[in-house]
Amino acid sequence: MRVQNVDYGVLSPAWAGSQTAALCSDAAFCQAMLEVERAWCHVLAEEGLIPTDHLAAIAAAAKVELYDLGKIAADAVGGGNPLIPLLKAYRDKVAEANPAAAASIHIGATSQDIIDTALMLVISRAGSAVLTTVKAAAVALITLAHEHRDTPMVARSLTQHSLPATFGWRVSHWLQALAQAGQHLEETLKQTALQWGGAAGTRASLQDFLVRSGSTSSTDELAAKLADRLGLQNPLPWQANRIPILNQANVFAQLAAACGKIANDVLISVRSENGELGEPLAEGRGVSSAMPHKQNPVLSVLIKNGALAAPQLLAQVYTGAVANVEERADGGWHTEWEALRGLIRTTGAAVEKTHELVSGLRVFPEWMADNLARHGELLATERMVAHLAPRLEESGHVGIGQGKKQLQELISRSLTDSTPLKPLLLAELPAGLITEEELTNLLDPSAYAGDATKIVDDLTSTYTDWSHT
Amino acid sequence: MRVQNVDYGVLSPAWAGSQTAALCSDAAFCQAMLEVERAWCHVLAEEGLIPTDHLAAIAAAAKVELYDLGKIAADAVGGGNPLIPLLKAYRDKVAEANPAAAASIHIGATSQDIIDTALMLVISRAGSAVLTTVKAAAVALITLAHEHRDTPMVARSLTQHSLPATFGWRVSHWLQALAQAGQHLEETLKQTALQWGGAAGTRASLQDFLVRSGSTSSTDELAAKLADRLGLQNPLPWQANRIPILNQANVFAQLAAACGKIANDVLISVRSENGELGEPLAEGRGVSSAMPHKQNPVLSVLIKNGALAAPQLLAQVYTGAVANVEERADGGWHTEWEALRGLIRTTGAAVEKTHELVSGLRVFPEWMADNLARHGELLATERMVAHLAPRLEESGHVGIGQGKKQLQELISRSLTDSTPLKPLLLAELPAGLITEEELTNLLDPSAYAGDATKIVDDLTSTYTDWSHT
Amino acid sequence: MRVQNVDYGVLSPAWAGSQTAALCSDAAFCQAMLEVERAWCHVLAEEGLIPTDHLAAIAAAAKVELYDLGKIAADAVGGGNPLIPLLKAYRDKVAEANPAAAASIHIGATSQDIIDTALMLVISRAGSAVLTTVKAAAVALITLAHEHRDTPMVARSLTQHSLPATFGWRVSHWLQALAQAGQHLEETLKQTALQWGGAAGTRASLQDFLVRSGSTSSTDELAAKLADRLGLQNPLPWQANRIPILNQANVFAQLAAACGKIANDVLISVRSENGELGEPLAEGRGVSSAMPHKQNPVLSVLIKNGALAAPQLLAQVYTGAVANVEERADGGWHTEWEALRGLIRTTGAAVEKTHELVSGLRVFPEWMADNLARHGELLATERMVAHLAPRLEESGHVGIGQGKKQLQELISRSLTDSTPLKPLLLAELPAGLITEEELTNLLDPSAYAGDATKIVDDLTSTYTDWSHT
Amino acid sequence: MRVQNVDYGVLSPAWAGSQTAALCSDAAFCQAMLEVERAWCHVLAEEGLIPTDHLAAIAAAAKVELYDLGKIAADAVGGGNPLIPLLKAYRDKVAEANPAAAASIHIGATSQDIIDTALMLVISRAGSAVLTTVKAAAVALITLAHEHRDTPMVARSLTQHSLPATFGWRVSHWLQALAQAGQHLEETLKQTALQWGGAAGTRASLQDFLVRSGSTSSTDELAAKLADRLGLQNPLPWQANRIPILNQANVFAQLAAACGKIANDVLISVRSENGELGEPLAEGRGVSSAMPHKQNPVLSVLIKNGALAAPQLLAQVYTGAVANVEERADGGWHTEWEALRGLIRTTGAAVEKTHELVSGLRVFPEWMADNLARHGELLATERMVAHLAPRLEESGHVGIGQGKKQLQELISRSLTDSTPLKPLLLAELPAGLITEEELTNLLDPSAYAGDATKIVDDLTSTYTDWSHT
Repeated sequence: MRVQNVDYGVLSPAWAGSQTAALCSDAAFCQAMLEVERAWCHVLAEEGLIPTDHLAAIAAAAKVELYDLGKIAADAVGGGNPLIPLLKAYRDKVAEANPAAAASIHIGATSQDIIDTALMLVISRAGSAVLTTVKAAAVALITLAHEHRDTPMVARSLTQHSLPATFGWRVSHWLQALAQAGQHLEETLKQTALQWGGAAGTRASLQDFLVRSGSTSSTDELAAKLADRLGLQNPLPWQANRIPILNQANVFAQLAAACGKIANDVLISVRSENGELGEPLAEGRGVSSAMPHKQNPVLSVLIKNGALAAPQLLAQVYTGAVANVEERADGGWHTEWEALRGLIRTTGAAVEKTHELVSGLRVFPEWMADNLARHGELLATERMVAHLAPRLEESGHVGIGQGKKQLQELISRSLTDSTPLKPLLLAELPAGLITEEELTNLLDPSAYAGDATKIVDDLTSTYTDWSHT
Repeated sequence: MRVQNVDYGVLSPAWAGSQTAALCSDAAFCQAMLEVERAWCHVLAEEGLIPTDHLAAIAAAAKVELYDLGKIAADAVGGGNPLIPLLKAYRDKVAEANPAAAASIHIGATSQDIIDTALMLVISRAGSAVLTTVKAAAVALITLAHEHRDTPMVARSLTQHSLPATFGWRVSHWLQALAQAGQHLEETLKQTALQWGGAAGTRASLQDFLVRSGSTSSTDELAAKLADRLGLQNPLPWQANRIPILNQANVFAQLAAACGKIANDVLISVRSENGELGEPLAEGRGVSSAMPHKQNPVLSVLIKNGALAAPQLLAQVYTGAVANVEERADGGWHTEWEALRGLIRTTGAAVEKTHELVSGLRVFPEWMADNLARHGELLATERMVAHLAPRLEESGHVGIGQGKKQLQELISRSLTDSTPLKPLLLAELPAGLITEEELTNLLDPSAYAGDATKIVDDLTSTYTDWSHT
Repeated sequence: MRVQNVDYGVLSPAWAGSQTAALCSDAAFCQAMLEVERAWCHVLAEEGLIPTDHLAAIAAAAKVELYDLGKIAADAVGGGNPLIPLLKAYRDKVAEANPAAAASIHIGATSQDIIDTALMLVISRAGSAVLTTVKAAAVALITLAHEHRDTPMVARSLTQHSLPATFGWRVSHWLQALAQAGQHLEETLKQTALQWGGAAGTRASLQDFLVRSGSTSSTDELAAKLADRLGLQNPLPWQANRIPILNQANVFAQLAAACGKIANDVLISVRSENGELGEPLAEGRGVSSAMPHKQNPVLSVLIKNGALAAPQLLAQVYTGAVANVEERADGGWHTEWEALRGLIRTTGAAVEKTHELVSGLRVFPEWMADNLARHGELLATERMVAHLAPRLEESGHVGIGQGKKQLQELISRSLTDSTPLKPLLLAELPAGLITEEELTNLLDPSAYAGDATKIVDDLTSTYTDWSHT
Repeated sequence: MRVQNVDYGVLSPAWAGSQTAALCSDAAFCQAMLEVERAWCHVLAEEGLIPTDHLAAIAAAAKVELYDLGKIAADAVGGGNPLIPLLKAYRDKVAEANPAAAASIHIGATSQDIIDTALMLVISRAGSAVLTTVKAAAVALITLAHEHRDTPMVARSLTQHSLPATFGWRVSHWLQALAQAGQHLEETLKQTALQWGGAAGTRASLQDFLVRSGSTSSTDELAAKLADRLGLQNPLPWQANRIPILNQANVFAQLAAACGKIANDVLISVRSENGELGEPLAEGRGVSSAMPHKQNPVLSVLIKNGALAAPQLLAQVYTGAVANVEERADGGWHTEWEALRGLIRTTGAAVEKTHELVSGLRVFPEWMADNLARHGELLATERMVAHLAPRLEESGHVGIGQGKKQLQELISRSLTDSTPLKPLLLAELPAGLITEEELTNLLDPSAYAGDATKIVDDLTSTYTDWSHT
């Protein structure tokens, strides 16, 4: 077995083996570059600007598996970009089949046109697959939210129990974040765009070629045909404007954050002491032969890993763009490539894992109930105080504004003395202020989930149609 | 003069003294928190849920200048957020005027509601001002692009002269980037949103309050009225979903990158050796008494400073969001605040400086012409080769595919021997292949700017209407 | 109360009100700049190069409280750095008292000398205070580790229970990380360095001044005296070399990471379901009147906040340095300032909070014991298998290499059927393979903590002397 | 040709094909993991704890080329780390040759021991090679600095000409930064450390194994032997303390910044308008067939690319460490790997390119002289004012403190009216104040380079010995 000086993803289980990794691999990117070159030849041939019989050789050679990508990568150092050696190899391959056809390739184009456009193709393809997975995950989340719409669970704030809610309610917020990020992705994918400007971005060479060829087409018209053929938008040349790249990058980082939140929640919930959730079981995943009681939450661990990496990958893309200067940057542009691919790859893989995670999440309502019961009636003291403080004041037992204070002192005494709160209140509050039954109801956490289930209904219905498109 | 333990911006000339800094200062943020509290009281009073005569005291106390922000900041450490001490101080202030009114404040709300909503208000206000400045800068850029639509200038790629273009063409790309980022800002500003969920986000306390009060309004209806009053959108509660914050943050970093590109270009152009541009002169700016020949490009230096800082500030916001967990994060949420404000402040100030920069940019066409002439006819050899290589091949003087090679050897000889290219070509090319006049035209850089001026027209017209709205 | 356009730290409870914030405030930095200017005058006066009677006015004016820092900050925009307006104000103040003395200030110096040196002074002063706090925290950790050297606690890996250990053992690793980072700080603080090079870094102006003055001292000798007076090292000028700044910045980010780890552990342990730790109680900290059962771990939340922010602040300093160019960078240098101060401030405050946290941490051994017991004898199956697998194979009951597999099947059956493991093993294993007593011992988690207590002893003794210096 | 879903570096010319990339490739890392496993078996065999005749099979299988790294990477997802599938494959391979030997592998160890230790081995090996290259680059810089010790060149500040200096002086600051970062690397490489703690870090399994085996060795003694065999330090287990990793990461980012500064300077200097430097020429590098006048500074472009990426890679390592929790983090640890390797790889490749760059840099003293002459005598007005202002005041022609102002007005008039400064001064200054010869000398830039050449001598001698070790 030949060991190449390449990355297999050994250090990156966050994305190794993922579908997204394949869709934005070096091979996928080189294939995209070849497709841009080939599509341009088709446009020119359709216009009668190059001989149609060149196309057979041009198309036949536009297959990435024909090229030694290790050599392309190493040779890219000479000119600072991979298109230069790939184009040379492509021309040589075409010339083998049809020597004249080699001259029909790359007319009026420049490295940046091919690289930026190929990056956009990769974004479009990998992004579309990611979007499909986001929607599938959203569907799973909607199902999960509905199923546990009424499953009682305590909400937590700053690690502490705050108020009663339901598990479906928490899930509906997972959905809200993931779907919002997914909708942002959907919007930006519609803006993946051709870059076509020639050496400096002025289309001088192309225009001159059209004049020489006696063509009546404009450079714009040809660019529009190329964009159409590639399934991309056709804005004016943007080689010196990196906003289109930044705008695409952003949404992936948003998705990573949405997935990371879900993983964070799962990672708390699978702890032995919490026990509310379990990751889906899969053969060979997360088990430890030495420690049979362990069920490592590997999906969540790797999703979290991806989410932690994403902000810096985004910042790397931005830092590259910030170093943009003149008509082609002296290092900034180059910095965008690896980081952008890294961001898409890491995020897409996190989305895939999130889909698997939420589709098979094991939910343990009894643990949720047990945990919710830990602080018992204390969870609803907010309500009790809201009800009784005004009565205390109105009844004249305490001064205006003193009701709340008085009740809090009783709560504190209950906590300090480990005295149950209800009997204490019944004993200490003025007779007739409240009946025992009323107090029992007031202190019942399960009746204090507010709009939780309504929010489940509203959030799931908000995203149901979208997630099924 | 009292020296407080505060930041005046001494270490941050990138934003010190800017309009944006004022719009997102600690005072502006605290004012926004007070306004959220006050507006909520107005909503409740309109609904008859609190006494209308409480509003006078409530409104009178909602003025940030009444509070010791240094103390608020220090006391925020106790509960981990600034709303807690500010709310206490606010209640005390209200109680001084009307003791009963203090109980009408913050009903059903939680710290996160106020803080997230106030952040959105700050984004909305500072962002709107930034957008206005972006548009003003765009107008200035359109004017500049028109003025120099035909001013010849060499385009540069990887620091090197590439092809002829015009200065207006370069400016039109500045415009393209800034306007695109500005349009993204405009879109996201429409999505600034109220967060209103109560302690855990379930609206339990508010719902209970409505029941107690015998109100027929729903929590949603009240939230909608509050959002309307604050000029914000009214989505479902999103306390556990940080995508709305990330989405706002993104666009500021895009703007910073767009400004940074302009500054980078200016910083090259104001060099003594380049000389193509000068920053607008202003009393006391950029001068050095020790070195009178220096005219430091201070605007661009500080814009670049801001642009360099922005990616990390964005990554900081994202990292906070990635640490989001459960219903209120244990540190992640808190990490968003300072970074988000820092990002808005730095970016807004960069936009202000960019506006000033491009509005008064001094352009030196004669330096542009001199620099363009440095490589003379070499700039157009791409075109010459494109024209002559096929003729050479068709004429049978060289084999198929050899024309380009032959011409490049002549160009190389011209470079190596410092021989002028035109006479060399005339001497070495087969007689009759080309006339001297034709060759002169082919090698004339000024006639090889492609679509440059058309791109100026197209880009400026694309953004003209928008920038004037 | 005047509301200035300044930061009080309202958005930054991670550092607001901290000692470190005061030590690296705008005022502290401006004071440091004034001290550098003053100290240089003292050096020159000692050399007889300026009149000694100028020093009174020069020293009297070198007090930051005499200056309007808001104005300094705003005016810094004109020249791009704060020294320019401060120096002007300083000269004016000196001239008020002694007109001739103003000319004795800043001789041969440049803005960068003062700013870089003042930053180093701030690093030195704030850093020294931070180091003192680190050592105090280390002392507290040693005490805590000793106290809980033998307190049983389960170790966790990937959120799951792994093997038995002790709480003191975990604490000893907190110590290890914090002390290592502290030792790195101690080393780098010894390298805080004067920058003294004059306008371009060549010391031309100073050298010329010495010649004019007929001085026999070298520029090096004077710089050495200045460094000595300021308590800094005196390397050759390094204005164009930012490694000294990066090297200082690094150690703060390390400290933040060490503190963040402690906070992360505490934030898991204070959860209601875990219960192993409690933050130190303090009046008004972390309590919620609405939710009396909550005890928000505010110290840890804010430490985590600081730790999350630190990597990006470090990256911001680095990004500034990466943009370094020629003899003074056009924006890169400026980017270092705010980020460096932010990093020191955030980190120092995190260290302060960590000190408070570990000094008063409430430890609940009974919760630790309960949690440890959750998986009971399963925690020690690794040992049981290690002991019995070879016996099974040697006894011929299973083939070579099959012992482990056989035992794991029994463990799995125990888990699946919820059958206690020990009786199952006794029933299923070949008679005579092991006695019940022996098996009980093998499965006792409390006897399987390995070197845990030895590691406590070794780690605490490693850092005891250092932490008391 | 099989196209695998792997990275060849097509998107990363910053490091593709570099020596460092090979030294920290997936293969190199997997080889390091195998070596750790093998070395541990050797230690155990030497102690008589496993049969010596197992070693042949164990050593024979410890060759990375025997394994399918693509499969290892994909399978790593199951357990969240690559050691698990590699260990399984390793055991299978050993068992093929010697079934009993498989049980002798990995005794008492855990994934983290192998992964952390293998990372340290990779750091040690790649880092040592990088250090060698740093020293070679330092030697080249010393030569370059000596050669151009006296080559006049203008120093620049904020893009503007500041004062005269020499090119060797600038180079000596390149050296200063690179050598300081290199010395930091040298120091930290001495601290690359074994991690050896077993499943939770308590060494329980190993200790139990020693007891069972009747060994009298301590776990410490065995760890020390392993560390010694691997050429690493042997601290106490540090699995829960990431400072050792952060400390290694830091120095690479410092090196990247030092290289980036050099590249930035070159990228300015190779511009057509500046012309002071040229990159070393190499066959096929940096040339453009379409634009023959271009000589793209590809080395510097790719060094800058690497330098721009490094801060975010460092921040990614730190962010991973900040997410550290308990005894093995749930995603934070995993985030360190890819980023750390990325940082080493990017930096090492930048150092290699910097070595090549500075070893063959083409220097054009005549362009330096031309550029220096652009502002002529204005460059030395600082000195002129310093000399003449006191004379003017002492002579009574102007009041105290007015001399400088008067002279600056004359300079301004010279600039405004484009009047040569010297005749203007001679005409306007009081007769007898200065002779023409004296004034000529005062305004001669070439005599105003201060300590520039002395600094060259001092800096080069400071690092000469070190760079030759």
